[in-house]
Amino acid sequence: MTVYAPKNQNLPLFEKHRAIVERAIEALHKREFYAQYPEMPSPQVYGETAEADQKQRFEAQLGKKFDRIKQSADSWLVADEQSPYTQQKLGISYPVYKEVSQYIAASQAAWTDWKRTDVQTRAGILVESLERMKQSFYEVAFSTMHTTGQAYMMSFQASGPHAADRALEAIALGYQEQTRFPSKLTWEKPAGKVNLKLEKFSTSVGKGLSLAIGCATFPIWNTVPGLYASLITGNPVIVKPHPKAIYPIAIVVALLQEVLVENGFSADVVILAPDAEPNLIAKKLAENPAIKIIDFTGSSSFGGYIEALPGKITFTEKAGVNSMIIDSVADLGAMAQNVAFSVSLYSGQMCTAPQNFYIPKTGIKAAGQHVSFEEVEKAIVDAVKGLVTHPKAGPAILGAIQSEATQQRVVDAKKIGGKVLLESQPIANAEFPNIRSASPMLIELPASAKETFEREMFGPIAFIIPTDDTQHSLQLASKSAHEHGAISCGAYTTDEATMEMIATVMADASTPVAFNLTGSTYVNQNAGFSDFHVTGGNPSGNASLTNPEFVLKRFTTVQAKVNV
Amino acid sequence: MTVYAPKNQNLPLFEKHRAIVERAIEALHKREFYAQYPEMPSPQVYGETAEADQKQRFEAQLGKKFDRIKQSADSWLVADEQSPYTQQKLGISYPVYKEVSQYIAASQAAWTDWKRTDVQTRAGILVESLERMKQSFYEVAFSTMHTTGQAYMMSFQASGPHAADRALEAIALGYQEQTRFPSKLTWEKPAGKVNLKLEKFSTSVGKGLSLAIGCATFPIWNTVPGLYASLITGNPVIVKPHPKAIYPIAIVVALLQEVLVENGFSADVVILAPDAEPNLIAKKLAENPAIKIIDFTGSSSFGGYIEALPGKITFTEKAGVNSMIIDSVADLGAMAQNVAFSVSLYSGQMCTAPQNFYIPKTGIKAAGQHVSFEEVEKAIVDAVKGLVTHPKAGPAILGAIQSEATQQRVVDAKKIGGKVLLESQPIANAEFPNIRSASPMLIELPASAKETFEREMFGPIAFIIPTDDTQHSLQLASKSAHEHGAISCGAYTTDEATMEMIATVMADASTPVAFNLTGSTYVNQNAGFSDFHVTGGNPSGNASLTNPEFVLKRFTTVQAKVNV
Repeated sequence: MTVYAPKNQNLPLFEKHRAIVERAIEALHKREFYAQYPEMPSPQVYGETAEADQKQRFEAQLGKKFDRIKQSADSWLVADEQSPYTQQKLGISYPVYKEVSQYIAASQAAWTDWKRTDVQTRAGILVESLERMKQSFYEVAFSTMHTTGQAYMMSFQASGPHAADRALEAIALGYQEQTRFPSKLTWEKPAGKVNLKLEKFSTSVGKGLSLAIGCATFPIWNTVPGLYASLITGNPVIVKPHPKAIYPIAIVVALLQEVLVENGFSADVVILAPDAEPNLIAKKLAENPAIKIIDFTGSSSFGGYIEALPGKITFTEKAGVNSMIIDSVADLGAMAQNVAFSVSLYSGQMCTAPQNFYIPKTGIKAAGQHVSFEEVEKAIVDAVKGLVTHPKAGPAILGAIQSEATQQRVVDAKKIGGKVLLESQPIANAEFPNIRSASPMLIELPASAKETFEREMFGPIAFIIPTDDTQHSLQLASKSAHEHGAISCGAYTTDEATMEMIATVMADASTPVAFNLTGSTYVNQNAGFSDFHVTGGNPSGNASLTNPEFVLKRFTTVQAKVNV
Repeated sequence: MTVYAPKNQNLPLFEKHRAIVERAIEALHKREFYAQYPEMPSPQVYGETAEADQKQRFEAQLGKKFDRIKQSADSWLVADEQSPYTQQKLGISYPVYKEVSQYIAASQAAWTDWKRTDVQTRAGILVESLERMKQSFYEVAFSTMHTTGQAYMMSFQASGPHAADRALEAIALGYQEQTRFPSKLTWEKPAGKVNLKLEKFSTSVGKGLSLAIGCATFPIWNTVPGLYASLITGNPVIVKPHPKAIYPIAIVVALLQEVLVENGFSADVVILAPDAEPNLIAKKLAENPAIKIIDFTGSSSFGGYIEALPGKITFTEKAGVNSMIIDSVADLGAMAQNVAFSVSLYSGQMCTAPQNFYIPKTGIKAAGQHVSFEEVEKAIVDAVKGLVTHPKAGPAILGAIQSEATQQRVVDAKKIGGKVLLESQPIANAEFPNIRSASPMLIELPASAKETFEREMFGPIAFIIPTDDTQHSLQLASKSAHEHGAISCGAYTTDEATMEMIATVMADASTPVAFNLTGSTYVNQNAGFSDFHVTGGNPSGNASLTNPEFVLKRFTTVQAKVNV
């Protein structure tokens, strides 16, 4: 007896990739450094001609139909994608359905076989798709760069190896949780002279149709965890990318569909459902009763709407207001260099970028010596200035500004009030003269200006806030994390008791703290296999990578027992 | 560095109980037969004079203040509890607060220390409370009997050892999930000549105040899983019992408070918040923004309200319509005896009791011979009649009817239509002449009467429905599980392919199936450590014991990292 006789079972494919899955499970449980996909764009790893070949593939795709998609569709949509580097439209069109109900019907039709196959077959197919994605990391990089505005290196890393590792985490955890309990056992209960005896069988059953709503800044990194988590647990997924960033995730969807079809499943197990202004379809999809699971990355207002939809299992990553608490430092310059990089990286368009710097107005200890507030502030401002005006490093770190709204926010920031410490300026990029760019604007605000600094100012805007003391800094950081959410928090202190106090109070607000980062480790970074990304415990989001809950909520375990 | 310096740490208490926790984790993962607390009321196990002593304690409690509670309170409430056996009021009063906001404030004040202690200390305290509960299993039994109407043996088992085992499951899973990842590690990432190196720390952080809303039929069994799951994960709990069944869970709360206070924690980590008509407080508590987690067992309408509350993590067990599919049997009499017991046990007031019997109108195969529909129906009716009129077994199996509403439902069932196969009747109980009792009513309904049999008829009412064939039976059972929920499903078939078809189609509706039960294993029973109770995948509830999600959703993991 089996509860589900596995459909299209392919155990050899699983065996081919078993070691990858098992190593990922091990790394996740040790939380050690691990990367299945090396993060550097190396010709040795990814192929001598890979970069050139894929650059060509990228260029050839511009202005054309994206015809690698195998799903069912009835028309083509010319997308609104535009490069922040050239400010030109990409002009790519994607296959779509005219009606949302058609996506739902296609997804539902594809569901049964996918749900009823075994987790090994699902894991084999999903890892295979990542192995193929590896051969598209450069195309992924170019498409990410020219939709999000990320610099080339970040585009490669975040959308390529880092995203693939995050997808692998979801496969690994999903596999582990679905094989955690025996799927077949004999249960015997002593009952006097004879034992009661039952054969018990169990299977995981996917909860239902899944919707993954992408964002414009990290179209792959923020989409694949939910996408792969839903797939490994037996749910079909409709991917609704951000209208401005479709191409990168379309590559991933096409690869998944290719492997699915090769294995006898419908391509519609994963459907790309792009849209464009004014006919946006995210809400229509989300509200459809057949959609049971929703993954969302984006604004707090839309995220709040998603979380409040009745009868849905939701995983959200919304906005946060991240703090940097400066209490005391071993090396003022090293701290300043590090935080300058953190506010500048991708022009502050990361959900983990610090926004509010809390510094005691009486100054801090640096290498045991007293340093005034003004000196600390100046060190940070100078470090940012030096970094962004560096002719090579500046453009490579800042990248471009993804949206006009973010650029407008920088312009508007001048009217916020406070003392402007550093003006934002466009950063020239030799390769892309038409780039939309803006260096970070630094503003000093009084601690009383809570209404201003407790809002997320997405983009290259940071505030320096003089406080009464570190207790006061911590109180402001904690309050804002509790009320408005926080995804990261940085702190500098040379005092062990202060470190513990900050860690404890921020933990109460479910916010992780990174202490005393210098050199090339930054508060923006959450490492695959080791760091939980977002905690799910404050208003910045209700989900956490890689909390096992992230896969568990997507399926249920159903038993059958037979009297023998 | 520690994120949380453990409050009131008591590692010796954990060491005292470590073996119990570890054995429970092992049993859960093997899903084997296991019971930490033996289910029979044995003097050898539970003490020679335990039953007599505790009967006396029970009798002495009637009409008095329940003064074992240590929580803060400002007044006494005379409860509405009434024995279904004597139809007399119990007359017990409980300490209460006049305002709901006072419970919230007390719970919040107790939270910080409980959240910030370590999981070992929490586990030690919680197991200790179960070990003490063991010494109150008889009082628990008498109080359960005289509030719920369960027969004595079921009262002992369900509220005593079975409930304690379910609580232990929550402790074990909660302990395991909170120790699953290392709380301290050194992370090293190769980066050219030098490695990047971070010390990483993590802790679990409870999500917030928890509310456990109890039901009138299983006041301990249905409350302790959520209660202990919230406690082990660092959340304080307000227990809001059903107004008619406070005493049993008050015993558990008092024991928990005793151990908490001995260990330096506030008794308010667990608060009993009873109420009485007309001043019901469940909604006021549930809607309070400070309440983050809600466990609920009860009606579908109230459960639906709980699930729809914005911003809450909810665990519900609501109503289900359970089916019995009869396709073919090895032994007609053995099947009839078994299902007769299942519909009669506690007069059908179990969430796992079968309601709808689907039998092909053309008859079935029994021991290879054709048997007509009428013969199968008669075998079931005769078996129920024989069982309920048995002078000893009848009262011991049926117990009493918990509420007047359930008794009225039986009276009203006569007006449903269909063919009454067996009238309900009061069953005389020698010990309790004033008992409120009703034997099962069996009604034949046509397959077209979906509107009648797709509703849950909580209590001793069952329907026999002639179908076209087993496919038709399965289709009706599946539809009703999908649309109205199901917690159990029974099936009888001697054909392997039919068995697999039933298991598969019911798994699609997230409903477990028990096949061919005869002898003393019943569809009503879900075994601790082995069976998932409710799947969370159909409308009968959104939670499942012992899906790891049941503990994981109650806390988040928060990290701190330090550059070294």
